[in-house]
Amino acid sequence: MELMIPLDNQGTTPMYEQIYHYIKEEIRMGSLKAGSRLPSTRVLADHLKVSRSTTQMAYEQLMSEGYIHPEPCRGYFVAAIEELVEVREQPAVQFVEPFAPWEEKDRESVVVDFSPRGIDLDSFPFNTWRKISRGILVDDNKALFLNGDPQGEYALREAIRSYLHSARGVRCGPEQIVVGAGNEYLLMLLALLLGPGRSVAMENPTYKQAYRVFISQGYQVVPINMDQQGMDVGMLREQLQHGDRPSVAYVMPSHQYPMGIVMPIKRRQELLAWAYEEEDRYLIEDDYDSEFRYKGKPIPALQGMDRGDRVIYIGTFSRSIAPAIRIGFLVLPPKLLEAYKKKAGFFASTVSRIDQNILYQFLTEGHYERHLNRMRSVYKSKHDRLLGELRAFEGRFKIRGENAGIHVLLTHKEGMGEEELEQRAAGAGVKVYGLSRYFIHPEHIRYPHTVLLGYANLTEEKIREGCARLQEAWGC
Amino acid sequence: MELMIPLDNQGTTPMYEQIYHYIKEEIRMGSLKAGSRLPSTRVLADHLKVSRSTTQMAYEQLMSEGYIHPEPCRGYFVAAIEELVEVREQPAVQFVEPFAPWEEKDRESVVVDFSPRGIDLDSFPFNTWRKISRGILVDDNKALFLNGDPQGEYALREAIRSYLHSARGVRCGPEQIVVGAGNEYLLMLLALLLGPGRSVAMENPTYKQAYRVFISQGYQVVPINMDQQGMDVGMLREQLQHGDRPSVAYVMPSHQYPMGIVMPIKRRQELLAWAYEEEDRYLIEDDYDSEFRYKGKPIPALQGMDRGDRVIYIGTFSRSIAPAIRIGFLVLPPKLLEAYKKKAGFFASTVSRIDQNILYQFLTEGHYERHLNRMRSVYKSKHDRLLGELRAFEGRFKIRGENAGIHVLLTHKEGMGEEELEQRAAGAGVKVYGLSRYFIHPEHIRYPHTVLLGYANLTEEKIREGCARLQEAWGC
Repeated sequence: MELMIPLDNQGTTPMYEQIYHYIKEEIRMGSLKAGSRLPSTRVLADHLKVSRSTTQMAYEQLMSEGYIHPEPCRGYFVAAIEELVEVREQPAVQFVEPFAPWEEKDRESVVVDFSPRGIDLDSFPFNTWRKISRGILVDDNKALFLNGDPQGEYALREAIRSYLHSARGVRCGPEQIVVGAGNEYLLMLLALLLGPGRSVAMENPTYKQAYRVFISQGYQVVPINMDQQGMDVGMLREQLQHGDRPSVAYVMPSHQYPMGIVMPIKRRQELLAWAYEEEDRYLIEDDYDSEFRYKGKPIPALQGMDRGDRVIYIGTFSRSIAPAIRIGFLVLPPKLLEAYKKKAGFFASTVSRIDQNILYQFLTEGHYERHLNRMRSVYKSKHDRLLGELRAFEGRFKIRGENAGIHVLLTHKEGMGEEELEQRAAGAGVKVYGLSRYFIHPEHIRYPHTVLLGYANLTEEKIREGCARLQEAWGC
Repeated sequence: MELMIPLDNQGTTPMYEQIYHYIKEEIRMGSLKAGSRLPSTRVLADHLKVSRSTTQMAYEQLMSEGYIHPEPCRGYFVAAIEELVEVREQPAVQFVEPFAPWEEKDRESVVVDFSPRGIDLDSFPFNTWRKISRGILVDDNKALFLNGDPQGEYALREAIRSYLHSARGVRCGPEQIVVGAGNEYLLMLLALLLGPGRSVAMENPTYKQAYRVFISQGYQVVPINMDQQGMDVGMLREQLQHGDRPSVAYVMPSHQYPMGIVMPIKRRQELLAWAYEEEDRYLIEDDYDSEFRYKGKPIPALQGMDRGDRVIYIGTFSRSIAPAIRIGFLVLPPKLLEAYKKKAGFFASTVSRIDQNILYQFLTEGHYERHLNRMRSVYKSKHDRLLGELRAFEGRFKIRGENAGIHVLLTHKEGMGEEELEQRAAGAGVKVYGLSRYFIHPEHIRYPHTVLLGYANLTEEKIREGCARLQEAWGC
């Protein structure tokens, strides 16, 4: 079958969207019959003289809406649409936030994507991972295929405890650790333990994904401004006079996302003091990106300072190893551990025992430490390269958050708005991320002239190219 | 170090518990110092003249309470207990329900465990699984280590759709499927979509794990009695006059757990009619054990009969492949799909992309079909063997639920109570499972003379041995 698709390459509608719309209409009108085979993405791309990623994106969108379906080794087929469930019309590209930057990569116009949530996959230790996994999937390991400990394999929890203790100063026993499949699940679980109807204070701007989970659980979220040291404890206290009364504060003391602030000891103590003032107040410590630090001594986790059992520590291996490793964990204070045993102790683990054992070996055989050391040096080179390139920007931009993590913030000194910064960058094939998307409500937006540049998933060459393009686009 | 543990093998306290208590007290009193190494479980077992599984159980309990910790290749060490967080005293063995029968296996006194939730792991296709997994963990598959589609990989959802359609008559598009890490997570997610404050009708007796999840989500659960055809729709309607008003009914039409009832078409239609009567009523269809059937034609899923978009289908590969395969799925009707996109569409998948891809290949390359066929024949032999052995029981027992699934029910005709049946069996080294544990409230218990016998994880020889022991214990 040959598809004659009239394409307008002068207009503003992206190519893939034109292809998607054309085929969708053909199917809806019945010109493309159910069961008929579509040309392959390669053939169609050749035929239309567009890149293959363009046709792939069009097909993916058609698939996600159920108009076509793939058959292994045979190609793409038109679905029977009378069977199609009508779902709410969706935007052609469901792109909410830069937590899935690879979706963006396919867009031909983006040459350099400074995604702040990317990671460097070239450094992933494939061989080690494969070797461990091969050693585990053997016949005499049958027990691995049975359900394990609902809280996570004991040996893995002990390995996590040992790592957290030596690397982050976290003080806990393995019985306080609950292993689970990713941040969202663990926060849902935590909401279950904390009980319904809570109000959570969050730094503003913040990690929106956590914000969304709290909202989905029926929690109120009270955004709290930050100063140079992090969450404004004065403002947190003031909330008590309004009806909001947060009883939980979610903070990222090691490296606040997205502001990059490292919270000093004094502010941590003030937060702990706030928590101790009333029964049933908690701090959730998201130890985000604590593994990567370029200047100064690492500050141990807030959890290690807590003598009143009020800090809930949440961590993940999705950032430090790879997002596909869906393994994170909570460290629960005793009272919440009790609640866990009562309310959720019977939930089977969300992480397969096989994956838990791979991670266990990865941790205990020294691979994780070696991996982190390698990543620190990889990210340090990229970081230094980026900051070197950004020296040319210092006349017009203030640079922040460069001491830790894997992104920096650029604020335009003469007040060019974030939207213009983004648009000019996009015009030069570069994607940067305006800060406003990290604020909880649009009316709270501050620092309107600031963008984020992440560099984890870029090569040094790409970093150089991206900066050169930005320099021209922004007139530095 | 040699431990002189005085053991009483005449008393009622199990050996492992005596060992556990002794070592715990030694640690608490300071006689065993932090950091000191314990003898290996083998050495201690030899020394005390007990089996190794006894010393292992004692050590496991000590580990789970944080008194000792293992170090790979070095052995077990005493923890520094001043660091130990005091947690609520727990029973030495945390055994709640027979959903984790292997925990029981270690008990020396149990020779044959007729666990109703076991599966046959000897038939797990290790080679295939390993081969697929090896093929996936290769360097040029880097993208697999990035986050994927939050709803589950599209190709996997399409493969699940195709299987459900042909094997179970489920009618849906891949866009209606949400992949997630196990039943408990999926039910939590579903509660989020259905919204708070619902009242759920459940068959009584039922699958208690689902019951517990609903309770944990703040739902009311209304137990509904069953007749020979399943949930009593009359009683379900009557609930409207009391304040309970269930708006959701959770049913297992293919093979009710634990009663083994297959719900006939007419009852299914009555349930659908109940759902259609009011806006916002739903049926949750747990298609439990639908893969295994020995008599009569399989009845397609209730979901396939639904013309009003009120059936939520929940399925899992944990039973049909292995419990460690933490992959299940929901099939959502359009309205709940909308709620999913709004409330939870941003949750990253709880199943790693690697595991999703292994399962995808397992499904699409025909391995799953072959595996199911093999399992059907394996379970059929065991089933026939058990029913053959049970012929000798027919004088005293009524046998039920033998047409599908992997367990049967035995009811004592002369009214021997379930407790006595269990105890007599235990005295003969056999574990059987009294029906009462599957009832929602103790005051609802019916059929007090009934026990369950599962056979999935027993060899035919063990089945024979178990029945011989039961015959003597029960005087058949």
